[in-house]
Order: sequence, then C-alpha cells, then structure tokens
Amino acid sequence: MPTINDIADILGISKGTVSKALNNADDVSETLRKKVLETAVEIGYERNRARKDVSRKLCVIVENLNPDNPAGLGYDIIMGFKKLAIPAGWEVDVVPITGQEQRAMSYDTFMLAHEYKGAFILGFSLTDPWMKELKTARTPAVLYDNYIPENPRVGYIGVHNQEGYDLAVAHLKSLGHTRIGYLGGALESYIIRARYEAFLQAMKNHGLEVKKGCVGYSYFISECTQRFLPMLLKNGVTAIICCHDFMAQAVATQCLDLGYQVPKDISIVGFDDAPFSAYAVPPLTTVRQDQQVLGNCGFYALNSLMNRTAISTLLLRAELIVRDSTGPARTWDLPRPRKIPA
Amino acid sequence: MPTINDIADILGISKGTVSKALNNADDVSETLRKKVLETAVEIGYERNRARKDVSRKLCVIVENLNPDNPAGLGYDIIMGFKKLAIPAGWEVDVVPITGQEQRAMSYDTFMLAHEYKGAFILGFSLTDPWMKELKTARTPAVLYDNYIPENPRVGYIGVHNQEGYDLAVAHLKSLGHTRIGYLGGALESYIIRARYEAFLQAMKNHGLEVKKGCVGYSYFISECTQRFLPMLLKNGVTAIICCHDFMAQAVATQCLDLGYQVPKDISIVGFDDAPFSAYAVPPLTTVRQDQQVLGNCGFYALNSLMNRTAISTLLLRAELIVRDSTGPARTWDLPRPRKIPA
Repeated sequence: MPTINDIADILGISKGTVSKALNNADDVSETLRKKVLETAVEIGYERNRARKDVSRKLCVIVENLNPDNPAGLGYDIIMGFKKLAIPAGWEVDVVPITGQEQRAMSYDTFMLAHEYKGAFILGFSLTDPWMKELKTARTPAVLYDNYIPENPRVGYIGVHNQEGYDLAVAHLKSLGHTRIGYLGGALESYIIRARYEAFLQAMKNHGLEVKKGCVGYSYFISECTQRFLPMLLKNGVTAIICCHDFMAQAVATQCLDLGYQVPKDISIVGFDDAPFSAYAVPPLTTVRQDQQVLGNCGFYALNSLMNRTAISTLLLRAELIVRDSTGPARTWDLPRPRKIPA
Repeated sequence: MPTINDIADILGISKGTVSKALNNADDVSETLRKKVLETAVEIGYERNRARKDVSRKLCVIVENLNPDNPAGLGYDIIMGFKKLAIPAGWEVDVVPITGQEQRAMSYDTFMLAHEYKGAFILGFSLTDPWMKELKTARTPAVLYDNYIPENPRVGYIGVHNQEGYDLAVAHLKSLGHTRIGYLGGALESYIIRARYEAFLQAMKNHGLEVKKGCVGYSYFISECTQRFLPMLLKNGVTAIICCHDFMAQAVATQCLDLGYQVPKDISIVGFDDAPFSAYAVPPLTTVRQDQQVLGNCGFYALNSLMNRTAISTLLLRAELIVRDSTGPARTWDLPRPRKIPA
C-alpha cells in the first residue's frame, strides 16, 4: 500500500512537507498542496484508517438544487440520508459543487483533500465533468437518479421509472384515454432520458401508439408550454404525461390560461410528488418518490460500497398518487384556445 | 385490524377453536385448520406482534436446487442470508417447496400457518403457482433472480445481467471475435429470458450483429449441445456465450468430444462463477455473481420490505472472471467434427 514516503519520493520533497500538505497546514502553498493530493490519488494512497482521530466524514454533493429549501426537491432526500448516517457515527457535509469547481479538481482529489470517505451525489447532469471521472473513481459514491456503468465503487439509486409510467398509463387507459402525449426536459439528463424511454415502453406495454406530433422535450419548460403544448393539443391528445411535477404544473397552468379545464378537457400526470404537488391547481396526479426513503437507501448503498459490496442499482417501487389533474377522457373536440394577453 | 373474533364470526365457530387452529393444536382437524388460515389471510388478519413469545421466523423457500450441497448454486446465497439474519435475532428455516405443494396452499396461508414473517425465494420458474400469487401477496418476499411487478411487499435481487454480458462481449471483441453465438435454457425462466435479452442488447451495444443460426435455447442442455452446438459451429461462430456455467461446461465438454480445442478453436463464456467453474476443463471464463453478498442483500431487502421500505430491484455489479476457456479468435475454418462413438 502506498505511503507518504512514496509521495515524497515522487515529488522530491520531504515526508514532513507531504504530511503538512495532507493535513492542511498553513505553511504549505495551495499549489503544492494540490500537487501532493493529485499524486496521492494517482498512486492510490489512502489515509491511515488505524489512526484514532481519523475522520468519519461523508458528503452530500448537490448541483442544480437548493438543499436548504424544505419545499424543494432534495431536502427530504438529504434528511433521509442524514437520519441513518449520523446515528451510525458519520459527520455529513452538504456541499454544492459547480461545473467549474469540478473542472478545477478531480473527484478523487476533492474527496481526499476533505477526508470524505464517500459521497452521495444529487442533481448531476450527463455533462458534469465528474460524471466522466466517476467511471473510474476510487472513492465510493452513490448517485441519485444517475447511472454509471461498471465501476464497482459507484452505485445508482432511484425510483423504478418504468413501473411509474406503467402505472400512469394504466390509470389513464382505465379512464378512456388512448391518445396520450408526453412533455419532458432535455435528454442530456440521465433521468429525463430514462423517463422518456420509460414512457415510450409503457405505451407499448399497454398496446397504445405514440402518435406523431404528440411528444415534445426541451431544456426550457417555456418551450414545452408555448411551442409543444399547442402542438399536442392540436394533435388531439386527451392526456399529457410529464417528466416531472414542475413541468406538469407549468403545463396545467398554461392549459388554464388557454381556457381549457383540467381534467375536464385535458388530463395531466406528473412525476416525483414534489412537496408542492398536492397544493398545485389542480392538485397533481403524479408518480411518488418517497424522498426520505430514497435518502435512507442512499446511505445503505454508500455504506455497502464502503464495505466492498458492489451495489450497481437499487430501485424503489413507484406509487401512483391520484389527485384532481386526471379524469375521464373528453369525448368532444377542444374549442379554439383563448387568446393570451401579451 | 381484523381479530380472532372476526374469523370466528365468519366461520360460525368459537374464538377458542380459531385460536387452537392458529396455534396448531392437536384436537383441530387439518381441514378446519386450513379453513381458519385461509379465512385469516382473506380478511388480512395478522398475528399479534405485541405478544412476548411471538416468533421471529423467516424462511428461505427453494425449488430446483439442493440447498445442502456446498458445491451447488444456492448454498452460499443461503449462507449469506443467514449470516445477517441470525445475528439480527431471526430464526431461519430452509424449506424446499414443489409446484404441487404450492397448488395445495396459497403463499400467504403457508406463511401465516408457519408464522413466517418473510420469505427469501430461490429457484422459482415463471410457471410456479406462487409466482402469480406474489403479485398481490401481503407477506413480504424477496425473490432471487425473479421479478414481480408493482407489489410493494415483494422485491427482486440479483446481479446486473446487462453489465455482465456487456463485459463478456467486450472481452471477446478485444480478442478479435465478431461472430459470437449464444446457447441458453428455456425462456420460461425469468432470469434465462433476461440473460438472453441482455446478450442481444450487449451485441448491439458493441456494434456486433447476431448472425442467423447462431443462437439456440432449450430446456434440455442436451438439445443445446447435440442440436444447436453443431449448428452454431457450422455457421462459423468463434465464440459462444452461455446462459450459465452448467451450460458452458456441457458445451465445452461436447466441443472437446467433437475434436475441437477450447479456446484455440472456440471460446466459451459462462455466467454465475459456480463453485465448480474454476475446476472445469478448461477452467471457465464467466460472469461472477458473489453469492454470499447476494445472500446479504437478500436479507437487507427483506428487512426493508418488512419495515415498509418498498424495494423493487437491487442489482449487484457483475464481474468478469477471465480463465482459460476464452482466447484469440481463430483465423481458420474448423475441420470436420470427430465422430462421437454411439
């Protein structure tokens, strides 16, 4: 196993300097500290676990979400994670990370620098620089709603999307809907792409055809509501399945603005059961992810990876929550839309 | 919550008789006992958990495998399950169950009759009567290598088949193989079907075509070795991926009997890393399932289900173990097969 001596030899500096750099001493420059850390990662150096004062620290890395907003997505997931991690003797830091910060320091280096033994990662998109590094990373990581192939140190947890949309399509079909459309976010996100594919498969599983011009996706929700929604309505959809509740809420609002009733004229289904979804107008029918339980599972999976149990994928059952945004399929043509004031 | 009184009322018998039936007293007939149990299951009766002497019993239900053979599949899975369950205070019974026994008593009734709080189920095929019942069963169950949709009381654990065959195809491709065949068991098994589909997807993922006449599957291994293997060889495959190590070993033996060298003339890959696979002739290249760890995960998932955490799917990373049954793709045509003595 590589030691401090090996790092010292490679860099031609003293063992004492390496030790100071690793322990964050003030009299070592940032440049040298970074060089020491990167070398340590390169040769597979690990901090001595036998040391009495060794840190038991984990981090929750977040991007694209606000971890301090109890009404937002992510808050309860982090809570669920902490509820198991802290009683098990771990300190947990919640660390927002930008793409720029990821480019400045590799994942393994970051983890070693802060003495984190493992990470629970929320909100990364496929273009995040660390997504590539995680394919070969050595420090255990569990990603929520993101899948990294092969690496036995990295796992994926989430809700079973296919089950979720199978329930949604079955529900709509039982209400007489056959012309079902889909509005989603950009396919550069693993989970958004997975949900889009799950929607297509669910339609197939239920013997329904996805009609031409009845699907739209865009990074911008406004493009979905303003460009794709009118297209779907024109093409006769009676129900729209959305990639998440933000989208569903925006689509419902736009339908109301256009003078259509939800669910009388058009049914809408979301995904997530976000904290606001029960209070939306109308309250959203949606596929629930139990966020606290997801957080629990995140800790279980990370703990397993840290103990060399190579969990690849852990999926929770999806549950359909039926509220007021879905109803029987309309049997009439939609009137012309109301003109929205500029 | 339904009580003993409710069961007594429905059947028009005394509370004392119901209690005796539930507690296996000698002076209650088997017919009445069965009737009481079935009624109890029907109305959702649960044994009183507050009782001090309440049993903490789980069962491992096995079919199509011998749980007492340390060299066989399943033994280490059960060991891994027990290693977590017993220290956690559970008694664990290992119970072989036939199709006939399943038809005689429903799953929930069986579990209530024996006071089992949860089951870990190994070796069921899609045609087992309880597979249908598990779709709506109330007693928690975790199935190894079998997937039941929707039911939040039932979960699936296994190895990530797609990852396994992706590794196998990548390995063969790196050795120059492009004409890769497949031999598998009957598609009436969930896992055998899943592996067959994973093979097709893996070939696609690696830009390889599955040629006509290069795939065979049958319930009978002998049909694969005697009918399909000659067909695959005639159609020029240089490597064969098998659905499990039993198949791989049988195929390797038949190749040797026909006068072909493994891997010089033909490469063979298995799945499972069964206890015998390292000692086969030649030792098998195979996709490993870590059975002890699978057993650990089985207990974790069952414990989660019993605590109302609805795990749907828990998959471990697959690992490719490269041994002597794979080598560089041959660049010559195969000679005629040796005549096998009748």
